[in-house]
Amino acid sequence: MDKASLVTIGNELLIGHTVNTNAAYLGEKLLSIGVSLVDEHTVGDSIDSIVQALKLAADQADLILVTGGLGPTEDDLTRQALTKFLNVDLHLDQKLLMEIEKCFKKRSTAMPANNKLQAHIPAGASALQNKIGTAPGIRAEWKGKLIFVMPGVPYEMKQMFEESVLPEIESAAAKAAKNSRQVKVIHKLNCFGESESNIAEMLADLAQRDRNPQINYTVNYGTVTIHITATEKNIQQAKIIADADEKIIRKRLGSLVFSTGRQTLPQLVGQLLAAQNKTLAIAESCTGGLLAASITDIEGASRYFTHGWITYSNHAKISELGVPAQLLEQYGAVSEQIASAMAKGAKIKAATDYAIAITGIAGPTGGSEQKPVGLVFISITGADTETKKFIFTGNRQSIRIRAAHTALNMLRLQLQID
Amino acid sequence: MDKASLVTIGNELLIGHTVNTNAAYLGEKLLSIGVSLVDEHTVGDSIDSIVQALKLAADQADLILVTGGLGPTEDDLTRQALTKFLNVDLHLDQKLLMEIEKCFKKRSTAMPANNKLQAHIPAGASALQNKIGTAPGIRAEWKGKLIFVMPGVPYEMKQMFEESVLPEIESAAAKAAKNSRQVKVIHKLNCFGESESNIAEMLADLAQRDRNPQINYTVNYGTVTIHITATEKNIQQAKIIADADEKIIRKRLGSLVFSTGRQTLPQLVGQLLAAQNKTLAIAESCTGGLLAASITDIEGASRYFTHGWITYSNHAKISELGVPAQLLEQYGAVSEQIASAMAKGAKIKAATDYAIAITGIAGPTGGSEQKPVGLVFISITGADTETKKFIFTGNRQSIRIRAAHTALNMLRLQLQID
Repeated sequence: MDKASLVTIGNELLIGHTVNTNAAYLGEKLLSIGVSLVDEHTVGDSIDSIVQALKLAADQADLILVTGGLGPTEDDLTRQALTKFLNVDLHLDQKLLMEIEKCFKKRSTAMPANNKLQAHIPAGASALQNKIGTAPGIRAEWKGKLIFVMPGVPYEMKQMFEESVLPEIESAAAKAAKNSRQVKVIHKLNCFGESESNIAEMLADLAQRDRNPQINYTVNYGTVTIHITATEKNIQQAKIIADADEKIIRKRLGSLVFSTGRQTLPQLVGQLLAAQNKTLAIAESCTGGLLAASITDIEGASRYFTHGWITYSNHAKISELGVPAQLLEQYGAVSEQIASAMAKGAKIKAATDYAIAITGIAGPTGGSEQKPVGLVFISITGADTETKKFIFTGNRQSIRIRAAHTALNMLRLQLQID
Repeated sequence: MDKASLVTIGNELLIGHTVNTNAAYLGEKLLSIGVSLVDEHTVGDSIDSIVQALKLAADQADLILVTGGLGPTEDDLTRQALTKFLNVDLHLDQKLLMEIEKCFKKRSTAMPANNKLQAHIPAGASALQNKIGTAPGIRAEWKGKLIFVMPGVPYEMKQMFEESVLPEIESAAAKAAKNSRQVKVIHKLNCFGESESNIAEMLADLAQRDRNPQINYTVNYGTVTIHITATEKNIQQAKIIADADEKIIRKRLGSLVFSTGRQTLPQLVGQLLAAQNKTLAIAESCTGGLLAASITDIEGASRYFTHGWITYSNHAKISELGVPAQLLEQYGAVSEQIASAMAKGAKIKAATDYAIAITGIAGPTGGSEQKPVGLVFISITGADTETKKFIFTGNRQSIRIRAAHTALNMLRLQLQID
């Protein structure tokens, strides 16, 4: 097994209500086990369209992943379409029905009659457990090809994919790889602090298209990820050349590289704080809770994070963080002085080892000639205090996210030096 | 013209580097002018795959939109694939070449030789101006069907679509609608407070598949959106039956319906607070800033939001919000009593009209028999104090988002009553 095709189902994907994030997630997961996703096809909730998409997928892949259309309502037709494609009957699975009923019992509510539909699967197929929602998945085989149908809701799909789908296809892919001639190994290096074009320029000699490994870039709100893709006859050989490239790149980029693989800045910062037994307080103005939310998104954040303030008004900056009113009057809320005073105030009040403060103009309105939209001051105080000025571009959301990430990166650099 | 098919091109979409946001954007835009996107197909940067996808698209639609693969590097093959599909020659457009050279002059850099490729278009086709990037788009006709090829970079694509594509297809769609027998009108009703299956049960008689309007559902972390799709001979007629359904649904669901179209809970809550000239403070424990971040994501939030606290430790709850230490000892941080004390403390300290407090166990660890993962208490204090207990399912992220949304919904209900 080396080729997969993805069918994502749902009118909501075609009318712009929902962005299809499942495709990117599954594409990356498949790549990590050496299976390549050759195409993705989105169709609406119609039996004929789904059957046609399944036929096309079967034409070009030996693994077919399907997401969506497993809900309890009448517009969820994936179950019926798969049954038609397989040319079998749809029948009620009593064990599955009991499991769905149990799920509702847990929530202390009666199962609506509609949900009984979710206990039906095509003859010869088997159910995949859904630990989070009520919709079970379906595993089927057809002419030697494997078909897995999962819910469309991203977190339900991910849980089911990782628990019930990935292990089986991983071992099938490993078996197939033994017989094939090419294996891919991908290393990812996550960088922060320079633009994609500047990083690409620093690595220009490695990025020729016919070179092995291949070097590619992706960007996400300031984080530039370098993908080193090595193709060789076996994994050992591929690892050797990927490692060699990683070494060269790390030497050139130095502290710009903050992590490998999927480790994010909040995860790394959390890990560094926990390992060094340090604590953190956060005082936010323009980011309005975004930085604290990214820190507390990580399990176990209470080990190092204790206090956060969102001082959205001048009054709050004065009363909660002890920022002098006179300083606000003199320099304005968006200034180096106020960022620094907010950080120092937060550190003292929370009695933590570090404090971060952010103040800026997220826009779209509120900017001026001297203080344009995108102007942000970030201050970090530990043993010393460091305050930096930035001008971020983009819309309100992008300015807020970049400010929060940049603050995390400043703290990361300090934690790595200290 | 009433059916469109979308082909999105790029290896980065299939290996999980990039989430395909173009599909949702284009789907919504097309819907707004009465054209329905019947499917979306993502393929990699390979001439054969692109040609095959174009053939499939032409099979089922009279408008074909294509994004991606127009860049200047060797892996950008859309231009060549379109030429092959049209069965013509690719030739250099001198005027286009001059425009691309001008674009580089503006940036004060010389045009790399690679970019000359972007001045080539298939014979008989015409170029679409790119005001932001260097890659021009392509407009072609094939057997009475219209084909528009645009860059993959979302903001370049959007600019080109709105400026050079939308006007033409809008007038073609309007002309076609005059002669055709069917027009679609879609109303969206956003609900919060009941599960998708319960809402579907309340509307079971409206949801038969052969009924007009059709009723469909989508769900996003507790928000259930009802889509009422009316199909009639003209827009007036379609509006009449969509309105009639909306009236029936609103009557049955009452206050479960909180908005129409794309208005989100944070937007609605912000609008209600601003209109009523009320202010809000927020005290968060398990959501760790997520609620404040969603409130401050809305432009102009400073009109009603002033103070936020993230009291992640017991100590912070005592020192910042004045929660009695004895109460924490007696009931534990995750309790009705503490949620209520946090909300009251926040309201007093911030001197706002309302305060929301959230305390809970987001997991994955930290749960017990009596206080399982997912247990969350939300308190809202205004003239009175209302505290509710919830058990949310899902992972850490899902529990946190549901808690924040549920808090917004509680505040919305109070603002609509008060």
